[in-house]
Amino acid sequence: MTNRVFNFGAGPAMLPEPVMQRAQDEFLDYRGIGASVIEISHRSREFMDIIEAADALLRELAAIPDNYRILHVHGGAQMQFSAIPMNLIARNPARKAVYAVSGNFANLAAKEAMRYGEIDTSCNSAESNFDHIPEFDARTVDTESSYVHITSNNTIYGTRWHAFPDTGEIPLVADMTSELLSRELNIGKFGVIFASLQKNLGPSGLALVIVREDLLGYALPETPGLLNYRTCADKQSLANTINTFAVYMMKLVLEWLRDEGGVKVIERRNAEKAAILYDVVDGSDFYLGTANAPDRSHMNVTFNLAENNLLEAFLREAEANGLYALKGHRSVGGARASIYNAMPVEGCRALADFMRQFERSHA
Amino acid sequence: MTNRVFNFGAGPAMLPEPVMQRAQDEFLDYRGIGASVIEISHRSREFMDIIEAADALLRELAAIPDNYRILHVHGGAQMQFSAIPMNLIARNPARKAVYAVSGNFANLAAKEAMRYGEIDTSCNSAESNFDHIPEFDARTVDTESSYVHITSNNTIYGTRWHAFPDTGEIPLVADMTSELLSRELNIGKFGVIFASLQKNLGPSGLALVIVREDLLGYALPETPGLLNYRTCADKQSLANTINTFAVYMMKLVLEWLRDEGGVKVIERRNAEKAAILYDVVDGSDFYLGTANAPDRSHMNVTFNLAENNLLEAFLREAEANGLYALKGHRSVGGARASIYNAMPVEGCRALADFMRQFERSHA
Repeated sequence: MTNRVFNFGAGPAMLPEPVMQRAQDEFLDYRGIGASVIEISHRSREFMDIIEAADALLRELAAIPDNYRILHVHGGAQMQFSAIPMNLIARNPARKAVYAVSGNFANLAAKEAMRYGEIDTSCNSAESNFDHIPEFDARTVDTESSYVHITSNNTIYGTRWHAFPDTGEIPLVADMTSELLSRELNIGKFGVIFASLQKNLGPSGLALVIVREDLLGYALPETPGLLNYRTCADKQSLANTINTFAVYMMKLVLEWLRDEGGVKVIERRNAEKAAILYDVVDGSDFYLGTANAPDRSHMNVTFNLAENNLLEAFLREAEANGLYALKGHRSVGGARASIYNAMPVEGCRALADFMRQFERSHA
Repeated sequence: MTNRVFNFGAGPAMLPEPVMQRAQDEFLDYRGIGASVIEISHRSREFMDIIEAADALLRELAAIPDNYRILHVHGGAQMQFSAIPMNLIARNPARKAVYAVSGNFANLAAKEAMRYGEIDTSCNSAESNFDHIPEFDARTVDTESSYVHITSNNTIYGTRWHAFPDTGEIPLVADMTSELLSRELNIGKFGVIFASLQKNLGPSGLALVIVREDLLGYALPETPGLLNYRTCADKQSLANTINTFAVYMMKLVLEWLRDEGGVKVIERRNAEKAAILYDVVDGSDFYLGTANAPDRSHMNVTFNLAENNLLEAFLREAEANGLYALKGHRSVGGARASIYNAMPVEGCRALADFMRQFERSHA
């Protein structure tokens, strides 16, 4: 094997080693056709088999009901910040929506939506630098709202919605970029779920959109053709040339996840991984968790060093120990360990050991 | 080496063998960092080096003047069918544009633009199934037009604009998806040039946009943030996570092109390759070229068999001889050999030999 590190980067993030190995092995010659998977038509039989297999696996692993469509849309989650209001805000002629602002990406999504309608951002935890999930009160939601938007996991701040709000008849839209397929979900509670691939699903440049069928058909007339969910659904996401490499890699990741035992198994493993790191943080005054404990993420573990001037040494020595990309986001500072599905338990153990050792030698 | 075929697919198309080999070699461990290039942050030093090197190479190889910006935008050329009018149509409050309709993609671009303004499509060769480039008369262009749009090479029909129209003060916008970096250009004659990567530049899922600086800043208010050229330029195309794999592959392709001698050399080679195939077509009554000879493309060579019922045997035997994906597009029929930069001269010779041999055994 190679000298691969434990990569704690927030995304584009590490992918499972067997997936990377497989992709490398067949990179020049996909299943004996004499060409790479990235060199063939998105309408070839070989590629159609890939996207159909990916969708079938996704439907099985995420338990997606029949009345939901799976779309693959260019541009990652952030393109969805535009696509969501363009496709949904006109459900009600009042053109209103509610955005729960639990972090930077939620905030960007809300700002983008303001181009297209009237956005309520009163559910907001900006005041405490998003160190917790804001309280959501369904009674305050304007009944004319076309949808309610949440960001299920906040990569930068290390928080997540442990339970999801009940929005009644108003569709709940969730950006699940850093969580999809890391925990079991009742998809039926959501109107739309979307996610970039580059955390738990594959490389960057594509988003997965899971949309309830009755929400198709409300796009604003100025919606770019490729962002129109109705068109994407009608054309099976192949209105134009898709990011074929990303779809291919996603299929390999989904096969890996199935072989690991599926979402229930990985969710338990993710909880175990997170606990290994939070235990170190909580068991010491040397490290300080930055997120409100009940809202803590299982994907991104954020913490500071009590002695902030030791941070640089911490990051440098971690890297020298094969623990890569632990620097926190500039808006929180400190350190962040992103431990998506592909991070093995051993990676978290290695980091926990390093943290204890670093504390012993610097406390 | 592997059993790689000569791949004549129209795109996603074959990439240069040394590029593919290099990408495979470093797929698991990019330059000793212990992670793949697809597993690192788009803001990491390693990736910033890649995108900066790609841009510098591109500027050098395509001779892009200083007053043009290079943008990388999600979604391939077709997303630009929306982005172009959203960014440019409001240059003049009349919101008009001219589209020269020389093929299916030009037609799709014009239709998409109609969401945003009044589109003149009178320059059009649809009547003869796009077998030639329509005559462009600059005197018929409404002086209030915000831009004139052409598709420089028509992949499906095998035609190209050998010379480009002079549109005076009105910016000329060119979809160069299947031609960029295959021929020398005077970039200064264009307002905007855009291209998907998956023909001459890399894998699918991203578009390259070369835009004259004074054309930035006219975006319609409803333009999605990630499609706004001003934002893309201000954020160096990194407003969100880009398709990092595509940028990386493009850099390798550009390095290969530089090492081959640059655009002047490849243009000569492309002319030679095309001539090898057109000579077979023209030297026989067995094969019939489908495109008007003076408008013939150097990227996509389209032809029929006089005996159309031999087509299936032709394609089947070609494939058995390692000549892959020669089937013509359904709207033209017949055969199509796409011979982008990465197709070696030997590939064209092998196809020409096969065509002569097939004629001998079936005429």
